[in-house]
Amino acid sequence: MPETAIISEVAPRDGIQSITGAPVTTEQKIALIRACYEAGLRRMEVGSFVSPKAIPQMAGTEAVLAACKQMPGLEATVLVPNRRGFEAALAHGADRLGFFMSATAGHNKANLNRTREESFAELAALVRDTPKGTLIRFNLSCVFHCPFDGVVPEAEALDWVERIVALDPEMEIALADTTGNASPDQVNRIFRHAIGAWGHRFAFHGHDTYGMGLANVMAAWEAGCRVFDSAAGGIGGCPFAPGATGNVATEDVVWMFRRMGVATGVDWNRLLVAADMAASIPGAVPGGRMRAVPAARQAA
Amino acid sequence: MPETAIISEVAPRDGIQSITGAPVTTEQKIALIRACYEAGLRRMEVGSFVSPKAIPQMAGTEAVLAACKQMPGLEATVLVPNRRGFEAALAHGADRLGFFMSATAGHNKANLNRTREESFAELAALVRDTPKGTLIRFNLSCVFHCPFDGVVPEAEALDWVERIVALDPEMEIALADTTGNASPDQVNRIFRHAIGAWGHRFAFHGHDTYGMGLANVMAAWEAGCRVFDSAAGGIGGCPFAPGATGNVATEDVVWMFRRMGVATGVDWNRLLVAADMAASIPGAVPGGRMRAVPAARQAA
Repeated sequence: MPETAIISEVAPRDGIQSITGAPVTTEQKIALIRACYEAGLRRMEVGSFVSPKAIPQMAGTEAVLAACKQMPGLEATVLVPNRRGFEAALAHGADRLGFFMSATAGHNKANLNRTREESFAELAALVRDTPKGTLIRFNLSCVFHCPFDGVVPEAEALDWVERIVALDPEMEIALADTTGNASPDQVNRIFRHAIGAWGHRFAFHGHDTYGMGLANVMAAWEAGCRVFDSAAGGIGGCPFAPGATGNVATEDVVWMFRRMGVATGVDWNRLLVAADMAASIPGAVPGGRMRAVPAARQAA
Repeated sequence: MPETAIISEVAPRDGIQSITGAPVTTEQKIALIRACYEAGLRRMEVGSFVSPKAIPQMAGTEAVLAACKQMPGLEATVLVPNRRGFEAALAHGADRLGFFMSATAGHNKANLNRTREESFAELAALVRDTPKGTLIRFNLSCVFHCPFDGVVPEAEALDWVERIVALDPEMEIALADTTGNASPDQVNRIFRHAIGAWGHRFAFHGHDTYGMGLANVMAAWEAGCRVFDSAAGGIGGCPFAPGATGNVATEDVVWMFRRMGVATGVDWNRLLVAADMAASIPGAVPGGRMRAVPAARQAA
């Protein structure tokens, strides 16, 4: 039996959200989700129940979610930033809710305009109020490095992880390298500690901004992590910051696991189709390496 | 005392050699070497005593070597492919000779037009004839993956390492991921085995073609390797194979070590100057991530 890694595809949400200029239509999003699904990806972050005024690219998440329900076996996660989003997501039959806050004060304030304590209290209530049978993914941003506060003291990060762990014995918790500036040794230590203390319930969400995306995926893998967020085409970069590429590319992660003999359930050629589709969305800033490697295009 | 990694800069040879079109002048090479030197890099592969007919970009290695002797503390390595190159290098006062062969039959034949046994016998004689006081770096290519023979059986790779180890008790041996398609678990296993069996005498030479460059550097580091080849600007890509980027970029490696608190002796801003210089050589195919990261440009 080969070892298995679970890829959680985030291009439809994290990747598309940052695209500026032309709005990405609901049809484009569904086409990308379908391409990822046809490549074998069975976990995806597909949208966000936020105000379309605040984040225009996430308009139409209800329709996206409805389309996902037509894809058997797809576990679709929608982000909910607050109680209003939480209720909208449940009203539209979401199976899996994505909560999020930051491990650092600076990023939490900038991103959510709240203190961490405020966010935690709000999300703790949502966790408590989530109906039985609805899954939760709790995303903790800036676990390693913060654009405002710099390198995160490990004890401080782990304190927040411990508090989140205590909210619910089952929900999956993603430890996110939001800036891409986590170092692999740091990722390895945090995951070793978290898994050692609280078991196998953690996912790694990485970015490739500093080129360390795969090194950090590997560092988390070595520590026992088996769930990884990534975006087809490596989209998610910020068009206002040249070089600030996005999420670690799904095709890069899948290639590395493939070379390691780790099963991901992904069809390589179909994944390249999905990655090319993501990368060609107008306004997208693609990243990753594998789409450009001629030898990989010939791999079965 | 922080841990220390030794960076062996290869842009002046491995990086420049593959540039087609306009020849890189001796003055350009010396300027790049000087920029790297001023950034604190004290080990470099600066040229190759090969026929300028075979590899035109390596013409002028004598003059490059003479310039290197004006840079105190610089350990300059020149590659020698055969006895003729060996004698030329010694005649020009080289301090450190770089020998090379492949761990795979296919690449050794394509690159050197010899069987591995033929190459090994020839290089064994050169090792034996190297005068006392002249250092040797023995580069073993395609230790992990070969463009012709695919993934290398680990026992076969380690057999060659063992034979090379036996040639000389002191020379440094580089285990090279020539295609960039080594996987980190493989790199980690090979280095663990090699260092466990034969001690700390190994360097890792990686490419970033498949985006696994830093993951593989980290895998070698974790196994105890402390010497790493890399090229400023990530040059070394092949202009005939779009996407086939070159050596892992020195600035990417140095940034990762910097984030890990590992000392490299490199001045970050001066390294960016050298990396930009390497990347701007006409015909060079630059790689790596860090030159494009705005936040890194502001780092002291």
